[in-house]
Amino acid sequence: MIDDDMRIKPIGVIHTPHKMAEGTPIQPFKARGIAGSVEIYTDYMTALQDVDGFERIWLIYWFHKSRQPKPIVTPYMDDTPRGLFATRAPSRFNNIGISVVRLKGINGSLLQIEDVDMLDGTPLLDIKPYVPSFDSYPEARHGWLEKVSQDTAEGKADNRFEQESQEKGK
Amino acid sequence: MIDDDMRIKPIGVIHTPHKMAEGTPIQPFKARGIAGSVEIYTDYMTALQDVDGFERIWLIYWFHKSRQPKPIVTPYMDDTPRGLFATRAPSRFNNIGISVVRLKGINGSLLQIEDVDMLDGTPLLDIKPYVPSFDSYPEARHGWLEKVSQDTAEGKADNRFEQESQEKGK
Repeated sequence: MIDDDMRIKPIGVIHTPHKMAEGTPIQPFKARGIAGSVEIYTDYMTALQDVDGFERIWLIYWFHKSRQPKPIVTPYMDDTPRGLFATRAPSRFNNIGISVVRLKGINGSLLQIEDVDMLDGTPLLDIKPYVPSFDSYPEARHGWLEKVSQDTAEGKADNRFEQESQEKGK
Repeated sequence: MIDDDMRIKPIGVIHTPHKMAEGTPIQPFKARGIAGSVEIYTDYMTALQDVDGFERIWLIYWFHKSRQPKPIVTPYMDDTPRGLFATRAPSRFNNIGISVVRLKGINGSLLQIEDVDMLDGTPLLDIKPYVPSFDSYPEARHGWLEKVSQDTAEGKADNRFEQESQEKGK
C-alpha cells in the first residue's frame, strides 16, 4: 500500500504573533511586515546552508488547528460558497499549507521571517527556496478572486475553519 | 502527540508521460506544453467547483519515487553541493512537492493540465488555486540560482534522487 510510505513529521516549528484564527491575516500579502521566526530542529539544520541568499522562501506546514474539511466552503474574501480546491481555506483534505514569507536572517537554527500568516506553533514540514522562474506568474487569471478587490477585501480570518473548543484537546 | 494527527492520504493521481526520473523536466517552466492529467477520486470531486476559472493551479503531491533525503545535495542546475532547503530537489525530509501547472480543462473528475514535471502515477495531496497576489514575486532575489542561466541550464532530471531499483519494490 502506497499509504504506508506517506508519513510526515514536523522538522521545526513556526512562531508567530497569531494565537488564534480570529484576526490572523489570511495570506502573507495581508501580513506585510508582521515578524515571526522558524525554529528548525537540530537534525535538519545542515540543510539550511545557502538558504540565506534567498529573499523569500516557501514554508510548507501543517494546519494544526483546522476543523474537518468540507468540499464546499465560503472563503474569507467572498460571500459565495466555492469548491475547496478553488480556495486557499485552511481546512483541507490533507491539511498542508504553503506560504511565501520574507527571509530576514538566519542565526543557527532560527530563521527570522516577515509576512507571517500562520498560527503560532504551526508544525513546519519543509522549506523550499522561492524562485521566480519556477513560481511567479503575475498575469495568471484567477477566477472568482478577480472579482474581489484584494486591496480592500477583509484580510483577516475569523474562526470559521478553526477547531471547535471541544476538538482542541485532541 | 501532534504526530498522531499528521496523516496524509492520496486524493487523486497525476498522469504524465514521465515514466522515470531520467529525462523528466525539473520544473514546470522546463516542461512547457507537456500535457498530463489529474484524476480526482470521487469522494473529492465536489471540491472542484469554481476551479475552472483559474489559468494555473498548484498541485501539492507526494514524491513517491524519491530516495532517502540528504541535508546536502548537488542540485540539477549546479555542480556545487547546496543545503537541501536551498534547492527544489525531490528527496525531502517530508516528500511533498509543489508545482504550478496550467489548467486546460475539467471533465468530471479529470483535469487536463500542461507543464507537467512530475512522474506518472504521482499521488495527489491537494489542489490550490494560483493567485498572483498571493504567490507571484517576480523580483525576489534567488541566491545561487541567480548565477545559473536558467534558460540554458540542463532542464532534465537524472536518477540521482530516484529510488534504487532494489528500493522500488517497497
